[in-house]
Amino acid sequence: MATTADFSVSRPCPLSQVPRFDFETDVAIVGFGAAGSCAAIEAAAAGAKVMLFEVSSGSGGAAALSGGEIYVGGGGGSLQQRTAGFEDRTEDFYQYLLMAGGPNADAAKVRLYADHALGHLDWLAAQGVEFKNSYIAERVMEPLTDDCLVWTGSEEAWPFAQAARPAPRGHTARQTGWSAGKYLMDMLAARVNAIGVDVRFDARALALVADEQQRVHGLVVRIDGTARYVRARGVVLCAGGFIMNREMVRRHAPHLLRADNPIGTTDNGSGVCMGMSVGGAAINMSEGFATVPWYPPGSLVKGIFVNERGQRFINEDCYHGRVTQFILEQPGDRIWLLQDQETYAQGLLHETARVEIGAAGDSWEEIEQELQLPEGTLTATVAVYNRHAARGEDPLFHKAQKWLKPLDKPPFVALDCRVDHAHYSAFTLGGLDTLPTGEVLTEERKVIPGLYAAGRTACGLPRWGKGYSSGMSIADSTFFGRQAGRQAARAAPAGG
Amino acid sequence: MATTADFSVSRPCPLSQVPRFDFETDVAIVGFGAAGSCAAIEAAAAGAKVMLFEVSSGSGGAAALSGGEIYVGGGGGSLQQRTAGFEDRTEDFYQYLLMAGGPNADAAKVRLYADHALGHLDWLAAQGVEFKNSYIAERVMEPLTDDCLVWTGSEEAWPFAQAARPAPRGHTARQTGWSAGKYLMDMLAARVNAIGVDVRFDARALALVADEQQRVHGLVVRIDGTARYVRARGVVLCAGGFIMNREMVRRHAPHLLRADNPIGTTDNGSGVCMGMSVGGAAINMSEGFATVPWYPPGSLVKGIFVNERGQRFINEDCYHGRVTQFILEQPGDRIWLLQDQETYAQGLLHETARVEIGAAGDSWEEIEQELQLPEGTLTATVAVYNRHAARGEDPLFHKAQKWLKPLDKPPFVALDCRVDHAHYSAFTLGGLDTLPTGEVLTEERKVIPGLYAAGRTACGLPRWGKGYSSGMSIADSTFFGRQAGRQAARAAPAGG
Repeated sequence: MATTADFSVSRPCPLSQVPRFDFETDVAIVGFGAAGSCAAIEAAAAGAKVMLFEVSSGSGGAAALSGGEIYVGGGGGSLQQRTAGFEDRTEDFYQYLLMAGGPNADAAKVRLYADHALGHLDWLAAQGVEFKNSYIAERVMEPLTDDCLVWTGSEEAWPFAQAARPAPRGHTARQTGWSAGKYLMDMLAARVNAIGVDVRFDARALALVADEQQRVHGLVVRIDGTARYVRARGVVLCAGGFIMNREMVRRHAPHLLRADNPIGTTDNGSGVCMGMSVGGAAINMSEGFATVPWYPPGSLVKGIFVNERGQRFINEDCYHGRVTQFILEQPGDRIWLLQDQETYAQGLLHETARVEIGAAGDSWEEIEQELQLPEGTLTATVAVYNRHAARGEDPLFHKAQKWLKPLDKPPFVALDCRVDHAHYSAFTLGGLDTLPTGEVLTEERKVIPGLYAAGRTACGLPRWGKGYSSGMSIADSTFFGRQAGRQAARAAPAGG
Repeated sequence: MATTADFSVSRPCPLSQVPRFDFETDVAIVGFGAAGSCAAIEAAAAGAKVMLFEVSSGSGGAAALSGGEIYVGGGGGSLQQRTAGFEDRTEDFYQYLLMAGGPNADAAKVRLYADHALGHLDWLAAQGVEFKNSYIAERVMEPLTDDCLVWTGSEEAWPFAQAARPAPRGHTARQTGWSAGKYLMDMLAARVNAIGVDVRFDARALALVADEQQRVHGLVVRIDGTARYVRARGVVLCAGGFIMNREMVRRHAPHLLRADNPIGTTDNGSGVCMGMSVGGAAINMSEGFATVPWYPPGSLVKGIFVNERGQRFINEDCYHGRVTQFILEQPGDRIWLLQDQETYAQGLLHETARVEIGAAGDSWEEIEQELQLPEGTLTATVAVYNRHAARGEDPLFHKAQKWLKPLDKPPFVALDCRVDHAHYSAFTLGGLDTLPTGEVLTEERKVIPGLYAAGRTACGLPRWGKGYSSGMSIADSTFFGRQAGRQAARAAPAGG
């Protein structure tokens, strides 16, 4: 008799070696986060018998750690967008999502989501997730009130604003204070429970069950220390990404190791590995989201970032995650955010970001020397910036006019944003290649029968650190979790 | 009866569905390039019956398109190194290779190769590949004479020179003129034929044969339009990389699409796909080698590269491939190499690189205007560079002193190195994760029984575009091809 140690997520358990099936279900879902809960709700709604296996003792996954924003737009605007005065056309929403997906954006997924995002928000509301009809215009990380609509990306920044008319699209679930993601996930979990999904906690997926043609017939899970065999018509992998598996991160996206705060719970890559075990292609494995929350206050955006060569490298009005990707690409670890008396203000930055003052002085020469930068480097950069900013222009990086002013009012400060010192967070954006239906694909993009994936186990809408915007991952996980659950429910019996 | 169209390299053919085995062998090798020929020679030398399947009508693969350099050092130096006055210690060689491998270098492979590279050069000589005992000190792309030892990397450049004592390590097979790789491969092919390997040309590998535990038992090949089944104790995938599969490049390494000259023959990714089909992990898929041959003449190294923001971005004394990786990372497409009257010289650059003069003038202000760069940008960059170069210093990028001089003798020129205009070449560096023995690994690094890979189908020594040095890929392919052939020959019978 096989012990649980005989299994590996990277090797399937042959169907012929299954001694018995302990459970029989239509749809088996691995993971009770944003994707898994939505897959379960849709599969059950389609009439399928659904079992959901979660390795930890409670629901929520990484989504419960989040700000609870859903990136939604198009269709002329949601209620919140229209109330706030934004008509958000589907084509603008589509273009922004496509650009945000980077050089390997999945146009089919972007199209489907752009066309159905408003309906998805309604669907979430129907599951019991409340969204207030309100808008915050200022730059925030997430609302600390129970408000809803916020700017959460680079919509107004170059080059995005040139491609798509900007609109705020972060729709935050209604909860006062940080981490509305917990509220969001509690609502979805309540719904999963209400509709009679058979949920097993403390149940670790050990391996897929596959036949010799690599059709998936179920999975092996460990419950109470024992291997239990589950037969399913469709298995949906919603087991999160791999940010907590430091060996996988090192192998695929080593730059993310520099962030001291991995955002994840049980995101150990097991879902991705299970998909690969039957020939599923993992793509975009080198991409991730990373950020240091360097604003608010928004006035800091009027400062400029320089690297250890005293060079600028980004238009500072981009989303903090995009700025951070460029920070991680700079040579060396030393990065500063330069401010003058008028732009500098304390705020979130000092509370949570561990960004401290690295130098202060009455001239930029003084700052340059204090930071031990080569003579003439930082001073030349500031001189060029100031010269153009005085005319309301940023010909090098195209920061929008409203954030431009010469940094010429002493005293000056250089905020120390060293990656190895400040508070950087990260999660992975690579995963299994899937169709919009959630069907897992081989490297040649052939469907693997019986296998589905969604959330960060898959590679979905968000797949480019430089394009990520808050709310994209939960939007993707919940929306494409639904598609996967529905598709798995309607799939023909495996082997049939 | 299955037609050849029923097979896919990304799905294995189940063992139970093999109607008959047309061939039985100990070791089956896919691909007759550098890795495949060396695997065949070693497997045969170990007493195995060897069949080699090559999709094209002749031997050589991408290696035959190369300059025929082998990156070799350590052990106190090869005959050529010692004759030229270089004592190359193994630890320096090891450190350089490790650094060249980038953040995900494979220390086990680097160690093995660093310890045995000199013996490997002897082995190649024993197969009939001649290496002259001679040295060229100047910066060249590859010898146009029949000479041997050349500098082919960033050994003397920052930061490599700080980590490992520099030595030239490109050992070029003896042939007068370009592309000594053809001679090298002809010698290896002659050896393969001499020892009685059963070579089948025009034979396309369609799929691996695997049992339900994903042990590999052989492969299906198409010969004369018919599917032929090959039983083998070990299958060695040496089918090249995937640079010719533009869809795979787009999905995994889109930046390489910008290079107009893919370096490959039948590098369509089929080897990587076959490995993935049985759960093999493909790693480093986003990495590649890319280059524009912007020197010689070496005097051009005294110029400076600037991007479309007028910023420098690299110490120009690096290997051309490292410089090119940084070029590809710059914002926008416009890149210039600035020269003054003393440093500018025509050469290879104008002949093959399609690099033309983008601007000329008697002052840097004139050049800045002609290139339509924002006022004060390029001029500030040159001023800072010149100020420090006059003191023999480059505090920003650490170009070595011998390449430093102020660019202050008019007339000045800006050479136009636009990626979309000049001649850029590229190949892929991602592939199957393997042990130094060539055994293919799952994402959890478990061995897949019966399957081996080498050359660009695997991820070997060279895995970082910024660290690549000429001769590394053929060194890796030939050396680790040998290991894979030997290991496959000694493997226990599959299923036993």
